[in-house]
Amino acid sequence: MVSMPPLHDIAHLAHVELRTPVPEQSLEFFTSYLGLSVTGSAGDSVFLHAWDDYEQTTIKLTAHATSGVGRTNLRAASPDALERRVKEIQASGRGVGWADGDPGYGPTYVFTDPDGHELGLYYESAWYSPPAGQVPALKNQAAAYPAHGVPVRRLDHINYLGAEVVPNRDYLVDALGAMVTEQIVLDDGTTAGSWTTFTNKGYDAVYTRDWTGTAGRLHHIAFAVDSREGILRAADLALDHDVFIETGPHKHAIQQTFFLYVYEPGGNRIELCNAGARLVFAPDWRPLNWTEAERAKGQAWGLKTIESFHTHGTPPVA
Amino acid sequence: MVSMPPLHDIAHLAHVELRTPVPEQSLEFFTSYLGLSVTGSAGDSVFLHAWDDYEQTTIKLTAHATSGVGRTNLRAASPDALERRVKEIQASGRGVGWADGDPGYGPTYVFTDPDGHELGLYYESAWYSPPAGQVPALKNQAAAYPAHGVPVRRLDHINYLGAEVVPNRDYLVDALGAMVTEQIVLDDGTTAGSWTTFTNKGYDAVYTRDWTGTAGRLHHIAFAVDSREGILRAADLALDHDVFIETGPHKHAIQQTFFLYVYEPGGNRIELCNAGARLVFAPDWRPLNWTEAERAKGQAWGLKTIESFHTHGTPPVA
Amino acid sequence: MVSMPPLHDIAHLAHVELRTPVPEQSLEFFTSYLGLSVTGSAGDSVFLHAWDDYEQTTIKLTAHATSGVGRTNLRAASPDALERRVKEIQASGRGVGWADGDPGYGPTYVFTDPDGHELGLYYESAWYSPPAGQVPALKNQAAAYPAHGVPVRRLDHINYLGAEVVPNRDYLVDALGAMVTEQIVLDDGTTAGSWTTFTNKGYDAVYTRDWTGTAGRLHHIAFAVDSREGILRAADLALDHDVFIETGPHKHAIQQTFFLYVYEPGGNRIELCNAGARLVFAPDWRPLNWTEAERAKGQAWGLKTIESFHTHGTPPVA
Amino acid sequence: MVSMPPLHDIAHLAHVELRTPVPEQSLEFFTSYLGLSVTGSAGDSVFLHAWDDYEQTTIKLTAHATSGVGRTNLRAASPDALERRVKEIQASGRGVGWADGDPGYGPTYVFTDPDGHELGLYYESAWYSPPAGQVPALKNQAAAYPAHGVPVRRLDHINYLGAEVVPNRDYLVDALGAMVTEQIVLDDGTTAGSWTTFTNKGYDAVYTRDWTGTAGRLHHIAFAVDSREGILRAADLALDHDVFIETGPHKHAIQQTFFLYVYEPGGNRIELCNAGARLVFAPDWRPLNWTEAERAKGQAWGLKTIESFHTHGTPPVA
Repeated sequence: MVSMPPLHDIAHLAHVELRTPVPEQSLEFFTSYLGLSVTGSAGDSVFLHAWDDYEQTTIKLTAHATSGVGRTNLRAASPDALERRVKEIQASGRGVGWADGDPGYGPTYVFTDPDGHELGLYYESAWYSPPAGQVPALKNQAAAYPAHGVPVRRLDHINYLGAEVVPNRDYLVDALGAMVTEQIVLDDGTTAGSWTTFTNKGYDAVYTRDWTGTAGRLHHIAFAVDSREGILRAADLALDHDVFIETGPHKHAIQQTFFLYVYEPGGNRIELCNAGARLVFAPDWRPLNWTEAERAKGQAWGLKTIESFHTHGTPPVA
Repeated sequence: MVSMPPLHDIAHLAHVELRTPVPEQSLEFFTSYLGLSVTGSAGDSVFLHAWDDYEQTTIKLTAHATSGVGRTNLRAASPDALERRVKEIQASGRGVGWADGDPGYGPTYVFTDPDGHELGLYYESAWYSPPAGQVPALKNQAAAYPAHGVPVRRLDHINYLGAEVVPNRDYLVDALGAMVTEQIVLDDGTTAGSWTTFTNKGYDAVYTRDWTGTAGRLHHIAFAVDSREGILRAADLALDHDVFIETGPHKHAIQQTFFLYVYEPGGNRIELCNAGARLVFAPDWRPLNWTEAERAKGQAWGLKTIESFHTHGTPPVA
Repeated sequence: MVSMPPLHDIAHLAHVELRTPVPEQSLEFFTSYLGLSVTGSAGDSVFLHAWDDYEQTTIKLTAHATSGVGRTNLRAASPDALERRVKEIQASGRGVGWADGDPGYGPTYVFTDPDGHELGLYYESAWYSPPAGQVPALKNQAAAYPAHGVPVRRLDHINYLGAEVVPNRDYLVDALGAMVTEQIVLDDGTTAGSWTTFTNKGYDAVYTRDWTGTAGRLHHIAFAVDSREGILRAADLALDHDVFIETGPHKHAIQQTFFLYVYEPGGNRIELCNAGARLVFAPDWRPLNWTEAERAKGQAWGLKTIESFHTHGTPPVA
Repeated sequence: MVSMPPLHDIAHLAHVELRTPVPEQSLEFFTSYLGLSVTGSAGDSVFLHAWDDYEQTTIKLTAHATSGVGRTNLRAASPDALERRVKEIQASGRGVGWADGDPGYGPTYVFTDPDGHELGLYYESAWYSPPAGQVPALKNQAAAYPAHGVPVRRLDHINYLGAEVVPNRDYLVDALGAMVTEQIVLDDGTTAGSWTTFTNKGYDAVYTRDWTGTAGRLHHIAFAVDSREGILRAADLALDHDVFIETGPHKHAIQQTFFLYVYEPGGNRIELCNAGARLVFAPDWRPLNWTEAERAKGQAWGLKTIESFHTHGTPPVA
């Protein structure tokens, strides 16, 4: 039993690979609407960067037969932390092995969660160096603030669908040191959703139950926008730029996130959420369980959850 | 040499004691304008709570012959972390000894920084339990959202004045495991300011050089407000409620904080800053040094720094 | 046929009388939540003032057996304009006669619309003179900005339910010189809603069809809040202060108003809307007609209109 | 003496011609930064449109040896109003004569103010018809909301420099029916600034005294942005896109406008201001006079007015 708090071996959620059957249209969405910039490409993938990301890649967008999520990357807090966590993963039997990182990233240990979603853990990372035209006026910023699109600040969190929530949640906690902050627990005792964090943010990785029982699907990935007004403006922008709004803007009761859900052209659900107003500082945080009765009240201000929110997901890796 | 990252033994900046020669007027400021609520009193002190603080006290306001800062409290991340840090502090020769915590807090180890500011470190903390009338509609919130005043969300950071910056900064780093994120380094090599963090926030504790050479003074304490619009509204409110605005609203180049500086009636400078839009996730963050030439450009959007910002401070404990 | 544009004989929508069966609770709502201040009382009525209203009364709140709207007042643009309009009203056969105005207001000509809602037209008005404690820091403001509640800025518009829309709309246009800006026209040709204005605002007075066929009911009155963020904050506040949220915050397609609908304790629907971002300047404005198909798309960002929005209204004067 | 209120013969401030010695750079500023779209060109001029302008042109940008303002256009409220006002202008001796309007506009009566600034008055106007790609999702909007730049909503007001204020102000009032809302009156009785309106906005046209005594110069033109947060965002954008910020964001005491002043590359000062939160409805509005002592307090929240604000202007038509 290690005496130190296990929480901080994972520094943060890092770049995520997203797959799309319509790569050109998806690229247009990520650049023109979300305001990401293209930093390079390799094979079927294009690398995209959000202006406040200190690393080289925020999204790896890969042409594929289907939509869905590819590898989710996590950055370890130190070389020692990386080593410790790889040992835990290997002991769990879910390790796949070391791989070269994406361009700009060091060796990455590949593994899966119990649901089969692919993850990668690394420490070495070459910081983003903005090209001419993207050099920011203030040097404490990764890249210049884009003059178009929303623009989103950084990746905020990922929400997986899981055939079951508990084994996946426990894996994040046991193998990676995540802390559970909030959950949905049904009247029959089933945990239908679990929000976990590696940082002072309320959540970085979420599992919600897949009503179809399928393993490995994606519910959504979320990008941070600085203010609620910024999210309202993103909705205005969506309206005039053929971006499909699924629901919102509104405020979740869970985590109190102000949200807007849209679909990118490939079918993946994308959330825009307000960044960081609510932070979790308690080292002895007590997970909050939301009941069916509480969920029945709808979102924070009473909006009933839209049906597709319970059904739409994008497929697992074939 | 401990192999784990030293960063996370301190969970967060906790409640701060502020002294005022006009306690009734200061109390009116903290409750009516800032929107804190009174939770109790002891001797010459009143305990105040901000709505998003999971602990019992945000500010301990103490009647005193002068203004200035009393004890700054820090919460350790675990009992082990507390023990480790107390040993480091004792080894540094700056320990004062164990004391009872404020009501709702466990044993607190009292010590000073090289400048003589008093600090306290503890782990045990009884969470805030809102009284009737303050029970929030959403259970993931410490207290109901006040219907009056700004209202501020939580304490954000403290900015000490130091006779010299470097010894104080090094003490935070060496004894407490803080990470330096940004600094002001003058042309002659003097470090005139240092911003350090224990969390994913860009900074929790700051030292800036006291131009008078005095030790132990306070520059300001800061409270978090959710949005920039919230800070503009706080300025509107100040205008009509006899709250003295020193400077702002504007945006700092350093840390990119959107700020408003006011003085509470006792003379202590209070900052309202936007919470959490910008977070620091890199475990290998590289401190940024701002030069005299860069500082001469003024704040982010070009505002020249007001003279009193360099001179006004509140006195050390007599 | 008068050659001058008839538009500007009515300067603006002025104070409205609202009736409530629970006057104490309603008063608490209007003062603590909306942030109006009490300026006086007479008989069963309390007079309330919003901080940006240059006149003495914004709402006259009257204890009554039922909820619903009493007299809606309009200010004429000049003594001549008052005279001209009274002649038109008398010619229409809907005049009731001259009455003393509410305290602070001159002689008021009382009349009804075809649906039976009571209106009053006056010119003389003694400006609001803030008492000690309400004197604003900036002299171009009617009263100090309140430190509690939303606070709402001013009355924005009134939305009547009408047994039929067209006769009421035509009466506003013909007798008062209103301009129609937007309408709902059903597939069968029925006008189901009509938005009309006396000013550069998109609308001041609205009629929507009462599905019950009742005459004289009220759909809602609306108060202006400066920003969309201010309305989101009002929703946060509602959540913790037992204010019932019916729907929103969201954005109407019609007029593009950002809205929040709540019920005051007496049962009257109250809207908070964003003030003035969208103004109508064209003197040859062409009324826009929304079709059933367009309405079926829901609100601006796709929210389906809540059922109670079509059914809940407060009763006519008994 | 006409008995009807003279206020409403002018419907609104319409498109303004701006001259620039660096037309390509200025065009880049107006399109990429402000988010206007190019609708056509004629000779040395390019026509630009803001998304919420119902008319065809918001700015006519003309290549010229110098910067400065060309013709300011006003739309009459009706053909009768046009006729009435042309008679008044002719009687004043300041009429120049009828000219063809810019493309999309009918016959325009050209005249000057006492300072020599050129103005034009017209009634006929062909509404803006958005081309493919600019058709808005909501039909009550002139054009789609741009996905780049600030983007500004519409022209808000013009601020001329005048060798003397009073003759120019009186001309607007007497010949055009403007209403004076606020003024600066110095201790020696000189009127140093006058804000006048044709609408419910607090001001449409302003004269401030030219300290150099020159006639015909321009202080600035202003564009409306929906929210204060939108203006803060515009400042962020300016920072990274080489747009020179002169002062702000801050709030004027006069008119309470939230402002940001930048210079376009040709040297003309451009203001971004928040649209319409504060409206003036009183038909008997009493002009407010600000004294030297009041002005010495600085802007609303205490910011001292920057020196260049008193000196920088762009030249009269050569």
